[in-house]
Amino acid sequence: MQDMEFTIERGKLWMLQTRNGKRTAKAAIKIAVDMANEGLISKEEAVMRVSTKQVDAMLHPQFDENARKAAKKEGRLFATGVNASPGAAVGQVFFDADTAEKKGKEEGLQVIMVRPFTKPDDVHGMLAAKGILTSEGGATSHAAVVARQFGVPCVVGASAIRIDLEKRQMKVGDVVVKEGDWISLDGATGEVFLGKLDLTVPNLEEQQDLLTLLNWADEIARLQVWANADYPKDARRARSYGAKGIGLCRTEHMFFEPERLPIVQRMILAETIEERKKALDELLPFQRSDFEGLFEAMDGYPVIIRLIDPPLHEFMPDEEKLFEEVITMRVKGETKGLAEKEKLLASIRAMHESNPMMGLRGVRLSIYMPEIVEMQVRAIFEAAANCTLRGVKVKPEVMIPLTGTVKELEWIQPRLERIAKQVMSEKGVNFPYKFGTMIEIPRAAVTAGEIARLAEFFSFGTNDLTQMTFGYSRDDAERNFLIKYVEEGILEKNPFQTLDREGVGRLMRMAVEEGRRTRPELEVGICGEHGGDPESIEFCHLIGQNYVSCSPFRVPVARLAAAQAAIKNR
Amino acid sequence: MQDMEFTIERGKLWMLQTRNGKRTAKAAIKIAVDMANEGLISKEEAVMRVSTKQVDAMLHPQFDENARKAAKKEGRLFATGVNASPGAAVGQVFFDADTAEKKGKEEGLQVIMVRPFTKPDDVHGMLAAKGILTSEGGATSHAAVVARQFGVPCVVGASAIRIDLEKRQMKVGDVVVKEGDWISLDGATGEVFLGKLDLTVPNLEEQQDLLTLLNWADEIARLQVWANADYPKDARRARSYGAKGIGLCRTEHMFFEPERLPIVQRMILAETIEERKKALDELLPFQRSDFEGLFEAMDGYPVIIRLIDPPLHEFMPDEEKLFEEVITMRVKGETKGLAEKEKLLASIRAMHESNPMMGLRGVRLSIYMPEIVEMQVRAIFEAAANCTLRGVKVKPEVMIPLTGTVKELEWIQPRLERIAKQVMSEKGVNFPYKFGTMIEIPRAAVTAGEIARLAEFFSFGTNDLTQMTFGYSRDDAERNFLIKYVEEGILEKNPFQTLDREGVGRLMRMAVEEGRRTRPELEVGICGEHGGDPESIEFCHLIGQNYVSCSPFRVPVARLAAAQAAIKNR
Repeated sequence: MQDMEFTIERGKLWMLQTRNGKRTAKAAIKIAVDMANEGLISKEEAVMRVSTKQVDAMLHPQFDENARKAAKKEGRLFATGVNASPGAAVGQVFFDADTAEKKGKEEGLQVIMVRPFTKPDDVHGMLAAKGILTSEGGATSHAAVVARQFGVPCVVGASAIRIDLEKRQMKVGDVVVKEGDWISLDGATGEVFLGKLDLTVPNLEEQQDLLTLLNWADEIARLQVWANADYPKDARRARSYGAKGIGLCRTEHMFFEPERLPIVQRMILAETIEERKKALDELLPFQRSDFEGLFEAMDGYPVIIRLIDPPLHEFMPDEEKLFEEVITMRVKGETKGLAEKEKLLASIRAMHESNPMMGLRGVRLSIYMPEIVEMQVRAIFEAAANCTLRGVKVKPEVMIPLTGTVKELEWIQPRLERIAKQVMSEKGVNFPYKFGTMIEIPRAAVTAGEIARLAEFFSFGTNDLTQMTFGYSRDDAERNFLIKYVEEGILEKNPFQTLDREGVGRLMRMAVEEGRRTRPELEVGICGEHGGDPESIEFCHLIGQNYVSCSPFRVPVARLAAAQAAIKNR
Repeated sequence: MQDMEFTIERGKLWMLQTRNGKRTAKAAIKIAVDMANEGLISKEEAVMRVSTKQVDAMLHPQFDENARKAAKKEGRLFATGVNASPGAAVGQVFFDADTAEKKGKEEGLQVIMVRPFTKPDDVHGMLAAKGILTSEGGATSHAAVVARQFGVPCVVGASAIRIDLEKRQMKVGDVVVKEGDWISLDGATGEVFLGKLDLTVPNLEEQQDLLTLLNWADEIARLQVWANADYPKDARRARSYGAKGIGLCRTEHMFFEPERLPIVQRMILAETIEERKKALDELLPFQRSDFEGLFEAMDGYPVIIRLIDPPLHEFMPDEEKLFEEVITMRVKGETKGLAEKEKLLASIRAMHESNPMMGLRGVRLSIYMPEIVEMQVRAIFEAAANCTLRGVKVKPEVMIPLTGTVKELEWIQPRLERIAKQVMSEKGVNFPYKFGTMIEIPRAAVTAGEIARLAEFFSFGTNDLTQMTFGYSRDDAERNFLIKYVEEGILEKNPFQTLDREGVGRLMRMAVEEGRRTRPELEVGICGEHGGDPESIEFCHLIGQNYVSCSPFRVPVARLAAAQAAIKNR
């Protein structure tokens, strides 16, 4: 679409200049779809004319356009700055990171953090905020880089604002905003308004043009788009957004529900296998009903269920808090209940690990304590059998996490497959199923040819694979050196958001090639966060994956990205 | 050497049978050297006839043979069992892991831990013991596997022993050994003696045959053997054992010395760069004199000095202890000194990382806080210049740890090289030097072709490379699942002791090949513990490394292993 400037002088038309027309995301989509429908451009061209950012914008909260206009009319436009990180945010103003974090995390307020500029020390506050506003800096300032990394709406360099950190207020002219006052900011336009503006959350099903475009995308794409979903409601949303399967269901989330956690803790602290099995027997019906809900929601589509992954201490009470209680009781000379607390503390301490990310979790835990995954596999297959008997078409795929050597699979997979077969024969039903593994340990990528002897599918866990390939603990790195690395250009992008093709990607390519050499029909996907990032999706296309799996909200973006990858790399 | 059985019957000689003769390590070496000197076998054959285990035995404490004979004569042989892990140990008996750890670690006693059998819970006690004795189990029992993994002398399955855990004693017939009594055990023979037996520590320089054999080994080997040494005394020992260079000097060890640690802590807690530089200026003379000692000891040989590697919180007081003090003071209402303690605690907490192994350390720390390594490089080059002026021949090589991308080197290396050149011009001297990096992050191995653009040498840090390639935190893994993995055959060997050729090794081979493609003269070595393991040394030979570097005590073993690798793979 073109903006054209022309004049008519003495009956003659003069074209003065022309440039690509600015338009809203909605208009861009409508124009592309209309032109394709009118036969002016091909479907492929229509798909290429809309950007993934535009699709993304259609699915995220935005300020209601009428509200925005009204606010401007009422003189509530407080300032404008650089549109540093897109998204609309409404919240109360706080002027330092510690307060922002406290108000946001502990008190649950909606916080807009305001600073002249930000530094690495401020990141914890920025993460707790709904929006960030600075009076200094540009599109590559610390605030802007961090905000984009974490997807927090952000306006920087709003230089009309005078921030007074002593008085805890900011001013433009005579208009004063004090700490605790409400503002609304739009990181896509750089506007900052006084007070609260109404947000609209777009509904995909009402957006006919977008739906049409995404259907064309699906026809063109070679990669399928699946979704990561732990609960039936997520699975239903994923399906309504066009997901063709569940690429990751994290079973441990089910362990954290309030009525289940005490049973989980009893299971962990069990001193005999019998005690442990008894607790697991109580957990089985919960898990089975979770899985039934998932299978029903995804009727006809594959559902990949990952067996328990985190270290057991994640399910236990906080060690530090308990330690503080014990010390306090000891100093005060209180004895009632002390012995139990001390015993619990000792148990939790015995589970302590110096680097839990690389400790007793995933398949290691399953080999150390097979009873948990035996229960989980029974729950999965009982649920699948029950659904089958009700006429639901199930395709369960059991995923073993954190494999590093094929021998781990040789140890655990046959005993789990025995349970699967046993349940099917108990219930007298038959349905297709698979056993496979995540590729998230560098050694798994390097020995994928061996691993594919047992694994019927690979799913790249690129969060952990990125952590271990770079040797970065994400929690630690994103708080400190990673920000500096992106600022200084040592890393072009945060590798946890956009796949590092040169390092992590090279391992992935190796794994696909060597895995398929062993098992040509190997199903390969990705379930790390990269599965929703367009540039990473293109790479997944290039190395011949079958699908990408991402958060339900990213599914439409991923569908478009998958089609664009196919067109660009024909 | 053959044991032969014969008879002479009616004037005729009958050879009945013949088999390889058992002989001590010393005898094996003497026979091989004598036969080569007599021209009966080649030097290569002599080198192949002695095992690395025999050389190892010649360098470790052993029971004095006369003392052993005397003890037997005196009836002090208490029991015999399976020789599960070689080495001689003398210590006091304790019957459970907690006591063994307490006596060994806190009270500094020499402990022999005795149990009917061991379980994973017992590992902390086994690690604190000089020797381990069990009455049950065989060569692949938990006790045997763990003891071999950690190099603790161990006798298992001494089934004549009746252990009474209640009475805290053990018995063979009427002979009773109570908790705290002394025993001596030989893990190479399976013998257990009452009381203390004299140990002899062999002196290499007196062992002429071994020295001859090792010189032949050096002529044959293609790999050089270097040593890991942090202090001049270690460097001197390394050299006397035949090391041809220092492959790893860990500079941070120098930060822990009692008179330096307070300065280091002041440097870390500095609130301005000026304060930090002031503290670093105080540390510089210490480091410089450490390095001068190393250069003097290694006169003429290369010395690789690794810049600071560990995270800064390792230099700070223990967080938990401080927390306990703070809570106690608060509960008691004590205020004197509380504020300072609280401030220190807050500073330490701000440095806390969830997975410190993969956090802010190595080159990341150098980019985050370049002042420390700038001081270190100045200290290295000032020391090298001073030594040169005294006529010592120096070959410093500065090693940057934990590199994951060439861009890290592009950021830090030029500014360090500038300091190097500046010091040389200040002092008016010139000497050869190199800047290089460790390859210990999987991504570094995968992108080694790029990294070699800047790095003039690679040194494989196979401890960390194994941790990250497997996704194992060594501290955590060796305490729990790794033991089970070896027992169950999921891992053939502990990959921290013997290099995993299939996974870690594949990455190493890739790094050597692609690094040399960029820089054909690239110097490649290894400084992880594997550098002293014969099987791993063979692999280093196979992939074309220039040297292996290991603990000074392992140098003779490594020299033999390097020669054997060359002969076997001709």
